[in-house]
Amino acid sequence: MAVPGPGYAITARVEVPASASAAGDLTVAVGRVGGVVTAFDVVEAHTATLVVDISCNALNEAHAQEITATLEALPGVRVRKVSDRTFLLHLGGKLSVESKVSLRNRDDLSRAYTPGVARVCQAIAANPADARRLTIKRNTVAVVTDGSAVLGLGNLGAAAAMPVMEGKAALFKRFAGVDAWPVCLDTQDTEEIIRTVQILAPAYGGINLEDIAAPRCFEIEARLREMLDIPVFHDDQHGTAVVVLGALRNALRVVGKKLADVKIVVCGVGAAGSAIIRLLGSQSPGAVLAVDIDGIVHAARPGLDTNLASIAALTNTTGVTGSLADALVDADVFIGVSAPNLFGADELASMAPDSIVFALANPDPEIDPAIALQHAAVVATGRSDYPNQINNVLAFPGVFRGLLDAQARDITDAMLLAASAAIADVVPEPNASFIVPSVFDATVAPAVAEAVRAATARKDVAPT
Amino acid sequence: MAVPGPGYAITARVEVPASASAAGDLTVAVGRVGGVVTAFDVVEAHTATLVVDISCNALNEAHAQEITATLEALPGVRVRKVSDRTFLLHLGGKLSVESKVSLRNRDDLSRAYTPGVARVCQAIAANPADARRLTIKRNTVAVVTDGSAVLGLGNLGAAAAMPVMEGKAALFKRFAGVDAWPVCLDTQDTEEIIRTVQILAPAYGGINLEDIAAPRCFEIEARLREMLDIPVFHDDQHGTAVVVLGALRNALRVVGKKLADVKIVVCGVGAAGSAIIRLLGSQSPGAVLAVDIDGIVHAARPGLDTNLASIAALTNTTGVTGSLADALVDADVFIGVSAPNLFGADELASMAPDSIVFALANPDPEIDPAIALQHAAVVATGRSDYPNQINNVLAFPGVFRGLLDAQARDITDAMLLAASAAIADVVPEPNASFIVPSVFDATVAPAVAEAVRAATARKDVAPT
Repeated sequence: MAVPGPGYAITARVEVPASASAAGDLTVAVGRVGGVVTAFDVVEAHTATLVVDISCNALNEAHAQEITATLEALPGVRVRKVSDRTFLLHLGGKLSVESKVSLRNRDDLSRAYTPGVARVCQAIAANPADARRLTIKRNTVAVVTDGSAVLGLGNLGAAAAMPVMEGKAALFKRFAGVDAWPVCLDTQDTEEIIRTVQILAPAYGGINLEDIAAPRCFEIEARLREMLDIPVFHDDQHGTAVVVLGALRNALRVVGKKLADVKIVVCGVGAAGSAIIRLLGSQSPGAVLAVDIDGIVHAARPGLDTNLASIAALTNTTGVTGSLADALVDADVFIGVSAPNLFGADELASMAPDSIVFALANPDPEIDPAIALQHAAVVATGRSDYPNQINNVLAFPGVFRGLLDAQARDITDAMLLAASAAIADVVPEPNASFIVPSVFDATVAPAVAEAVRAATARKDVAPT
Repeated sequence: MAVPGPGYAITARVEVPASASAAGDLTVAVGRVGGVVTAFDVVEAHTATLVVDISCNALNEAHAQEITATLEALPGVRVRKVSDRTFLLHLGGKLSVESKVSLRNRDDLSRAYTPGVARVCQAIAANPADARRLTIKRNTVAVVTDGSAVLGLGNLGAAAAMPVMEGKAALFKRFAGVDAWPVCLDTQDTEEIIRTVQILAPAYGGINLEDIAAPRCFEIEARLREMLDIPVFHDDQHGTAVVVLGALRNALRVVGKKLADVKIVVCGVGAAGSAIIRLLGSQSPGAVLAVDIDGIVHAARPGLDTNLASIAALTNTTGVTGSLADALVDADVFIGVSAPNLFGADELASMAPDSIVFALANPDPEIDPAIALQHAAVVATGRSDYPNQINNVLAFPGVFRGLLDAQARDITDAMLLAASAAIADVVPEPNASFIVPSVFDATVAPAVAEAVRAATARKDVAPT
């Protein structure tokens, strides 16, 4: 199912005989083993040999090695080195800190630093609210992780989480002009994480929690929301929930059903699943069943932790028990944020007519999208190589743009729902292949920001 | 003694009658009360009135109000508003976070973020040393404060310290291309500060401690140096010591004395004074006396804390007691990092011939520089309006440039002394008015960085 993509792109520097066909043979050889050549550059030309850089997309590391071996097996060919373009891009990291003020001469220095800066410090000490006016707090968000749930890779720790947090910060800037800074914490103790974020908070206008494992993430977020006067947003929860609800809104329009009438199965009750269920709950859906590795969640199930108990209370009003397959019978909507390949065509066929399938496990969805497309009316995934990619990039930049602009002190379900509706409404005429806008649609973040700002104004969350 | 400077610059928007003389009268009026007009811009011209922006430097807030009142008292003049240019420059803060990678299309996103970034995270998890290659750690320094000793203003707290830390970060970029990030901690508990910095450390290639009160700063620095594998530098201590020793090296050349022969009085035994004494100690000076608010420090003095006891052990080998005035008799060098106006011409006259006076208290030195210049052979201050400004900007950017380039894990006295000598040697022929280079001399930071790199290579502090 997978195709070679730019996430695994290599450039091989190769010496080939200077014959008419040798260079062309390289491209043919790469293609024969399934590589996709994206660029071919001659870097040196000698009498007997050419040196060329051949760039191509591969499936994975083994595939890249297979491509390299294929090149080396060609007569007269020598591979000098192979560069991984993803790694090349990461050399030295992805962020820089820049001064917004020029420091050309003594006058500049006297205003931006000593002695002039002293009065600015005194002004903030006298009136702490001035920090939002006179420091970077106004536009700056901390992207906080403990490295315990990095992408789908698991507990890699603080240092190894940096590339994701740097990338997130780059996206914040690219899509919404937000200055975001990676804060990777070398602790996985809930109390220490909470206290550290509290200690760091004065410099920031918002906190974006990221890739923190469930159930720890729920307590960290709840406690920080309680103690801080800036909004705290756990993207794995709320970012996902916002985009999923926006996509669902449009998917329901496509199939002509109403949220109040549909039966929804949410598979996976970690950070994302729990947040989806909670945000759905505020919208009075017809029925919701939560399913995890132990089957359908119900209030009487033994061993429910705090989070699962609260999910049980929000779902499954009739106390159904059973497996995912049982849950899917007559369901209108499947939302999976769980694990790869959990069901197939048979279970899918048991769903209600015009079913909606959001199979969001990454990189391999809960059901093969190719199969899902044969049975369901609308299919969405987390992948970029199928229509309807559910991508948090649609939400978090605009959400924080709105929160910062409103100088919001808190974040509410009303704001999240407003953001969700804004994303959906960017698509004027949704159809089965177009329920969410492209992540590169430049109108999304401003629309989300405006919706969040407006929702902020309606609630008692604006600055006093 | 003070003169109006750009650190207190205002722009007044003023309506004046459209007569030939009215506008000129404004400039005359500002000058009459001691303001310095730096710009005069007509922003609107009507039949009967002109609207002009008159920019001028003032001494302080009271002086700015006096200037405004003087303008308003002129016949037919109305002051619409007065803007403080230092505050204008600070609106929105002084730093931004920028992406070094472009995110134009799906391929870019696939490499800088998911799915490509996953492999970079895995590479760092497998080999933690790769964090210096594949993340911003390589070029990034945390500027850490608890806000307990902000400039000379005292304990203003974390939020109010931000403008200084942002300014510091801007200087790091401007002078040495270092990405520095303000880390303002909302705690003043020694253990919490240490633990928080330890938790944050994986993302950074170095820690610059800043404006943390003594004696807390000594323990925080010592403990962090012990536990972290990146260099920890307390600029108020070591930055000052590096520049002072560099300046002293050249001042001694000017007066033809040797460090081994001179008697040095260090007044003030806080962060800066203690570090100066310790770094001097490694250079075998003739004699050093430390003086604080209780007089000359000696081992038998009651009530010495840990820091003062260690200073007593490093100085005053003959057990002298007495006041600052007693200490100054026959002293060759005075280094003040203490408080304004502690002595005058009489004490100065008691010093040895060809005396050297570094009166570094800010903004008002230990002795009026005008008086000092009449008696001493070489005078330096912390002020920019006299020759020989002792400014930490000469040291910290180049020091960290060198540490980062060497991927140093520690910082040693040998590196600090190398930095100090490098600063001195930028001045080829020192004279009484030119013992340190200008802060805008672009050769300083590279020379300091090179010296630190070389010293790193000589010590067992390079990466393994």
